[in-house]
This record gives sequence, structure tokens and C-alpha cells, in this order.
Amino acid sequence: MNLVELSSRCAEWLRGSGPLSDVVVSSRARLARNLASMPFLSRCPPPKQREVVELCRSALSRLSLPPEVFFVDLEQADALDRQLLVERHLVSRQQAEALGPRGVLVAGDETIAVMINEEDHLRLQVLRGGLQIDECVAQCRRLDEMLEGQLSFAYSSRYGYLTACPTNVGTGLRVSVMLHLPALKMTGQIERVLRAARDMHLAIRGLHGEGTEPMGDFFQISNQTTLGKSEEQIANQFRDDILPHFIEYERQARQALLHERRLALEDRIFRAQATLRSARLLSSEEMMALFSHLRLGLALRIIEDTTAQTLNELSLAAQPAHIQRLLKRTLDSDQRGAARADMVRQRLSGK
Amino acid sequence: MNLVELSSRCAEWLRGSGPLSDVVVSSRARLARNLASMPFLSRCPPPKQREVVELCRSALSRLSLPPEVFFVDLEQADALDRQLLVERHLVSRQQAEALGPRGVLVAGDETIAVMINEEDHLRLQVLRGGLQIDECVAQCRRLDEMLEGQLSFAYSSRYGYLTACPTNVGTGLRVSVMLHLPALKMTGQIERVLRAARDMHLAIRGLHGEGTEPMGDFFQISNQTTLGKSEEQIANQFRDDILPHFIEYERQARQALLHERRLALEDRIFRAQATLRSARLLSSEEMMALFSHLRLGLALRIIEDTTAQTLNELSLAAQPAHIQRLLKRTLDSDQRGAARADMVRQRLSGK
Repeated sequence: MNLVELSSRCAEWLRGSGPLSDVVVSSRARLARNLASMPFLSRCPPPKQREVVELCRSALSRLSLPPEVFFVDLEQADALDRQLLVERHLVSRQQAEALGPRGVLVAGDETIAVMINEEDHLRLQVLRGGLQIDECVAQCRRLDEMLEGQLSFAYSSRYGYLTACPTNVGTGLRVSVMLHLPALKMTGQIERVLRAARDMHLAIRGLHGEGTEPMGDFFQISNQTTLGKSEEQIANQFRDDILPHFIEYERQARQALLHERRLALEDRIFRAQATLRSARLLSSEEMMALFSHLRLGLALRIIEDTTAQTLNELSLAAQPAHIQRLLKRTLDSDQRGAARADMVRQRLSGK
Repeated sequence: MNLVELSSRCAEWLRGSGPLSDVVVSSRARLARNLASMPFLSRCPPPKQREVVELCRSALSRLSLPPEVFFVDLEQADALDRQLLVERHLVSRQQAEALGPRGVLVAGDETIAVMINEEDHLRLQVLRGGLQIDECVAQCRRLDEMLEGQLSFAYSSRYGYLTACPTNVGTGLRVSVMLHLPALKMTGQIERVLRAARDMHLAIRGLHGEGTEPMGDFFQISNQTTLGKSEEQIANQFRDDILPHFIEYERQARQALLHERRLALEDRIFRAQATLRSARLLSSEEMMALFSHLRLGLALRIIEDTTAQTLNELSLAAQPAHIQRLLKRTLDSDQRGAARADMVRQRLSGK
């Protein structure tokens, strides 16, 4: 397994078929961990960073992990490969752009990614399609337990797991979901809902996490504070008290659109489909905005001649690094716009 | 012949096949005349206005005019019929909205329209497709000569024909062309060209003449001053010195687009076609803007599956009054948007 193969595969979360996938694109859990024997990264010189990578890789190699696991040495990988991993949500933008010894271990179906020397020595990530917070957290914890048999993590009996950033101290767990909220956007309710989310100490981000703007009505929502709560409390509160409201609001807004503004809704969806099937130049931003309308059209059965999986796959395959890997050459922004339009047009209309 | 029949017919200028019709949509000439025996309209009480209508109609009825000529009494016509005539460029917006005895005599192929009690007692209009200024002026003059055998026009040996507005005094002739200048717009040169036109004392207007904004890259350009020049001088200068420049600039800009920005050009044209074939709601303004791209696509042979005639016909048939006459009911703006989208979609894609 290598990155070229990866870019043409369908990750588990891309299948578009998980629970509540009409609104919840994907669920993610991640645990932040640091080795007790090594200084935090901000005070860790490169030779010691290399030692961290080696210790972690060695520990990981002794675990019983899914088949087709592979490791990417991010210090050796070129910029395009690193960007490709960002586009697939397997490393953070920060880790891709950092310097020094660092890497990521990825499971073949991309449910698991273990980032080494990201902000902490270890970031265990589990990513799955639809609403699968429990599964993500459980899988994260199993991985954590297995690793604790191999490594000794920095832990304080008073604060819990110690992390580079104080917001992660405690359980080190963060759960997030990628929500698709087009109807709340169309009906002008999105700002109110997002404000309520912020009042509940949730972080709202774009498609690629920290530092990215929401695009195409996709919002990543995650818990902010971890201190003083168990993994279960965090996951349960998020799953039981918060998410059902968001999902319900969005579904109500969709029904309202269907019953009160059906023609305007159809107009937007059919125009989006027609544009995707005919454009000769297409930016990532516009593509995601148009996919958002199509996805809504699929959820409401207004269109049926494509699938969420196709849109999910294209939304990765048409990103800059993916396109360049696929076409095996460097492309400037205009050339990517043309290649993206061709790829999308062919996939969605066969022309 | 009546208005319902008219709205489903193809006027001569709609055929989209006249000379230089890649840039010149239509040519128009009009003569302003007033009866010597009657006061100008601003000082003409309604009974005398009615007398003007009767004198003019009676004179017109004695001429040998094309078959299928018909008269519309604008004082009796309802608002929708008056608007329909405006949409077909057969009466001015001002005359449609005025009060009092007034009307228009229209030839079956709509090349000739004689407005009675517009701003002057008589406005003789000839409208033809493509660049046909000479033909329009010649036909106007023949009509004028025939009428002079029946009526005595207000004339001063010093000033020429007297008209309600001093800008028309002299020959009373105004010639205009409807130009389609999408490439000058796309390449950002349109403002410079229009400024040059204004410096040459040309008036620039929108699709429906005086008081309307340019829409969809269609510009009506006409001479401003008539005093002191013969009909021939006016028409010749416009045809020989001015128009060739506009046409040449636009054609050069089209070639530049084709050779330097072909992909952006194709992108715009194919998107426009796809939107017109898929929209469920469509305003007049957007429709005309999209037709403009399609028309350019036809002129440059980028698309071939429609015709300029189809676009010309739709650009009338989908106007508010036409749509309501066709569907035989009153529609509000939203309903017209839906009906327009349906009409355009069916005509351009068969769906």
C-alpha cells in the first residue's frame, strides 16, 4: 500500500452510508498522548524527536492492527504527498507543514491514523462515516490500551493525561462530527444554530479542521474542553445532548424547504447538477458548494442519478494534490480548475 | 390578425439572419412627423387628439401597405396588451403608459409600426433584422412620401420638420441598431467603447430604448442630433463611419477570447446553456444574460444545437406580458419566473 494506491481507494467514511448520513458525513475521535520519558515537542530537539518516532513506530509494530497498515515518513515525503494526506484528513495541516522527524501510520481503510509528532507525540485518530461516535471512541480506546502496554504516557494523577496544549489536558479526547447543514443555511438559521453551539463550548470549523473556513455548508463541530470529564461523559454528552438537536433542526429545515419552497429548492439543486455536468473550469470552493446542493437533493430524493459515495470520492479526488497525483504532473491553479471540471463532468454525466 | 396571433409569430427581425447578425441584432429607423393643422400633443386636448388619430388612420388606410396590417387602439387595449406591444418593440414604453386617444398600426411581419400620438402625432418606425439601416431608412421614406400625399406636415423652411422635442427637429429621423457586444464586456473594453460612442453624440440605451438599462450585453445605439443634416447624411455617417468600428472591435475581442481565453469562454457558454436547460426559476434579466452567452457561443460555433431565431423568439415569448397571454392567466413575478424557466427549458432541451 502506498499513497498513489490510497488516492484511488474508497476510505470507510467515504461510502456515505453510515447512520444518519443524510446529515452526519463522518465522525471522528482522537486521543492526544505524550511519552513520559521524552520532553514535549516544543522543547524536544530533532534527535530526540527522531527517537520519539522510532519508539512509537516500534510500539505500533508490535500491536495487532488491521492488515494493510502503512507508515508515511512525513519528513521524507514531498509536499504533494503531505498535502494529499491532509486532503484525506489523515494528517493535520499543521503536521504536514511542520519540520523535523514526524510521520503517520494509516490503516488501509483509513479508519485509523496515528500521527507521530503532531502537536503531541501521539495523536490517535479514528474516522468513520455517518454518526459513529461510540465506535470511534471505542476503537480509539482499544488502540490506546494496546499502546499503554508498550509505552509509558505522561500522566498526572491530578490533571490526567498531560498534553502540549492545556485545552487537551485530562482525557486528551476530542470527538467531532462533520455535519452537512445546507437547509439551515438556505433558511437563514445557520448563524443562530452556530451561535448556540459556541455557547455550548463547541468548536466550529471547516472541512479541514483547525484554521479552515466552513465550505459548501459542511461544518466540523467538536468539543472544546476535556479536563475533568471522562471519555464516556464527553462522548455521551455530545452524542445524546447536542448532536440530536443539530440533526433535528437541519431535518426540520429540509422539510420546511420541501413543503414551502420546493421550487426554489429544486431550482438550486438542478442548476448545481447542470453546472457540475457542464463547467470547463471549477474551483474547489465552487465544487464543494455545488456538491452541497446535490447532496441535499439526494437526501430529499429530488435527484437520484448519483450517490453520496460518488460525491464524497470526488470531493477528495478533485482536490489539488489528488488531481496532480492522478494526472502525474504539476498543475497551476488554472490547470487544476480545468482538470477538476473535466473529472467532475465525466464522473457525473459521462461526457 | 390580432395580438394573440402576433405573440406567437416570428417577426422579420427575429429570424436572426440579416447581414452581420453575429453582432447586429436589428436595425431601426424612425421618422417623427406632426400634422400642420393640429397643435402639438402637449397642447392638444383629448377631442383634438382623437381627431389626430382619425386623420392619421384615415390617411394610412388609403395607402398601399403590406397585407395583414392591423391597428391597435391603445386607449382601449388593456395593460397586458400594451405591455406585449412594448416587449415586441412596436410601441414605446411611454406611449403604452400614456393616457388619451392613441394607437399603433402594425404590419404583419412587424417591419412597420406607425405610432399615432406618441410624443409626436406620428412616429413611423421600420425595424429589420441584422444591419439593414439603408433598407429601414428607404422604407421609412417611402412611407413618409406616401403619407405626405395625404397629410400636411408641420414644416419650417428654416428648421425642417417641426417636432415636440427640439432634438428631433430637422429631418425627424433617428436610426438605431441593437448591438450584441458580449466580448467587449468580457474583456473589460465595453466602458471605453461606450464612452467613445457618447463622445460621438450617440445615445446608448437598453433593450427597450429610452429609459431602459442595457441587459445581457445588448446595447441600442442611436444618433442624437437630427438638425441640419439630411436623412442620407445621418444614415450614411452612422453606417459608414461609426458602426463598422463597433462591429470590428467586438469581432476582434471575440477572436482574442477564442485564442487567448478559450476555456473560460467555453466554460461560460456551456454553463449558460446548462443553466437554461435546468433552471426551475428564471428572471428576465438572468435569461437575457444567459442568452447573451449562448448567442456568442452560436456566433463562434462553440455550440450548434440551437439557433439565434430560437433565442430571439424566446427572448420575447418569455417576457412578462407574452407569458401571461400564452398561459391565459395573470401571474405574479414568482409564477412568471417558474413559467419562464419551464418554457425556456422545454424549448432548449425538450425536457
